[in-house]
Amino acid sequence: MKIDGSITNITFLGLGLIGGSIALALRKKGFRGNLLGYGRSREALEQASSRDLVDEITLDINYALENADLVIIAAPALASENLLRQVLFKIDLSNGPIITDVASAKGNLLKVALEVCGQFPPRLVLGHPLAGSEKSGNGAAREDLFEGRRVVLTPLSSNDKSSIEIIATIWNSLGAEVVEMGVSEHDQILAATSHLPHILAYTLVNVLANRSKGKNIFDYAAGGFRDFTRIAGSDPTMWRDIAMANREEILKSMDDFRLDLDLIRAAIEQNDSQSLLDIFSKAKIVRDSFPEV
Amino acid sequence: MKIDGSITNITFLGLGLIGGSIALALRKKGFRGNLLGYGRSREALEQASSRDLVDEITLDINYALENADLVIIAAPALASENLLRQVLFKIDLSNGPIITDVASAKGNLLKVALEVCGQFPPRLVLGHPLAGSEKSGNGAAREDLFEGRRVVLTPLSSNDKSSIEIIATIWNSLGAEVVEMGVSEHDQILAATSHLPHILAYTLVNVLANRSKGKNIFDYAAGGFRDFTRIAGSDPTMWRDIAMANREEILKSMDDFRLDLDLIRAAIEQNDSQSLLDIFSKAKIVRDSFPEV
Repeated sequence: MKIDGSITNITFLGLGLIGGSIALALRKKGFRGNLLGYGRSREALEQASSRDLVDEITLDINYALENADLVIIAAPALASENLLRQVLFKIDLSNGPIITDVASAKGNLLKVALEVCGQFPPRLVLGHPLAGSEKSGNGAAREDLFEGRRVVLTPLSSNDKSSIEIIATIWNSLGAEVVEMGVSEHDQILAATSHLPHILAYTLVNVLANRSKGKNIFDYAAGGFRDFTRIAGSDPTMWRDIAMANREEILKSMDDFRLDLDLIRAAIEQNDSQSLLDIFSKAKIVRDSFPEV
Repeated sequence: MKIDGSITNITFLGLGLIGGSIALALRKKGFRGNLLGYGRSREALEQASSRDLVDEITLDINYALENADLVIIAAPALASENLLRQVLFKIDLSNGPIITDVASAKGNLLKVALEVCGQFPPRLVLGHPLAGSEKSGNGAAREDLFEGRRVVLTPLSSNDKSSIEIIATIWNSLGAEVVEMGVSEHDQILAATSHLPHILAYTLVNVLANRSKGKNIFDYAAGGFRDFTRIAGSDPTMWRDIAMANREEILKSMDDFRLDLDLIRAAIEQNDSQSLLDIFSKAKIVRDSFPEV
């Protein structure tokens, strides 16, 4: 594995599905350095240890940061804010470890970094692998989770170039394609393509549950419905955190969605057959043009 | 195949995905009578003929009804209204063929029947197989489309019992499980589990298309999003028809959905972390309890 020789000790702050999968993939790709897992749940750490995801586990964040060359914050969105704050307080910002993360929102972490440091720390490279599962926890970790997936990095112009390169090299070596974009752009895109759909799926399932009043109307749901609501099986805490971490962009997406839904509602109410056909046709053309993965 | 011996000639009014799949499945299960396909598109009929879906095709509805023992209206929701109206005008209601259909809405057809006949025709058995695909047309017909799927029949108390039994026997013989419920109940359940999700998927794709302004934000959509929007690839004409055919129940579902979505919006706006967690958790519990097909 061609990582800069300076990376020997990698510390994971949080070791769930994403952190665990990075650890597994690093080993599979031949990384020979030391992997250390920090977390707040002894049980989760011990599970990671028993699966040999990492070489060492600890509940002590100071110990976890002590010899780290690279710190990967791999926690839910709000926990990531808190961990980033702690890390930035504790390490040497110019000669300390490279720091990266995997959270679904980037603007909140940028804000934390600016609050703590006054300026953006050059060796902090915010990132987000577009990979995941409805499953969570390191028990679901898979060494191929990032193969063929995109990873978005949102570096700032003040970022240390070699830190960006090292993070990109690591993701590439795990089989992912790295794309760079701005923090706001990332948060807008993710609100629309991921956060809003999850909220819609949760909402739909609740609407049906309220309607069914004891009898199981889900028995009558066909295949499309199952696909549609699969993501409502995702971890509620994780998505609560994301909803709050990317609050502004999610609210905007919800408002856009509501406006478009209201247009369809009006067309149905007014028997406006042509508008309905136009709206549905436009969506079908767009959907049919999706790149297949 | 154990159908009542009185069924020799089956006429399909409309021969797309559903009609074509019924024809294929009947043959596979050993039905030896005559299958006749009527439609308005010569091209579609000739395609059906070249695939040997039916024994005979015609563009003449009078000819199609002449010797039919069973008429299966297998057309989109609004076309089904029109076809049912024609059939009820043309046939002998007490000794003529059994009539059934496959459309996603039942209340509009009940209304047509009452308008034309003054009372519900005893040999009309409204039905709806909960099976389908984003694909349409008889080119996509499959002999196993109904295996293990549910078919809802919505008979009235004035229905001829032997007609209901014959329709149920046919569906059972094609591998489907037959469930009976009321017309309104059917339309409410389908609005919530199928019609609303399709509208949401169309809406979401349009919201994203409007946002992307030239650059392809769909490139950043992960697996959950693909699942979520797959049904937006469905036939726009078919779904325009369904939206109008089941108008009242769909509007109610959309209003329910909007209320629940507004609750989540308010919780996000007010940083009401606990409400969000409660809402998402409730949905996850329900989704996890879905029967797997």
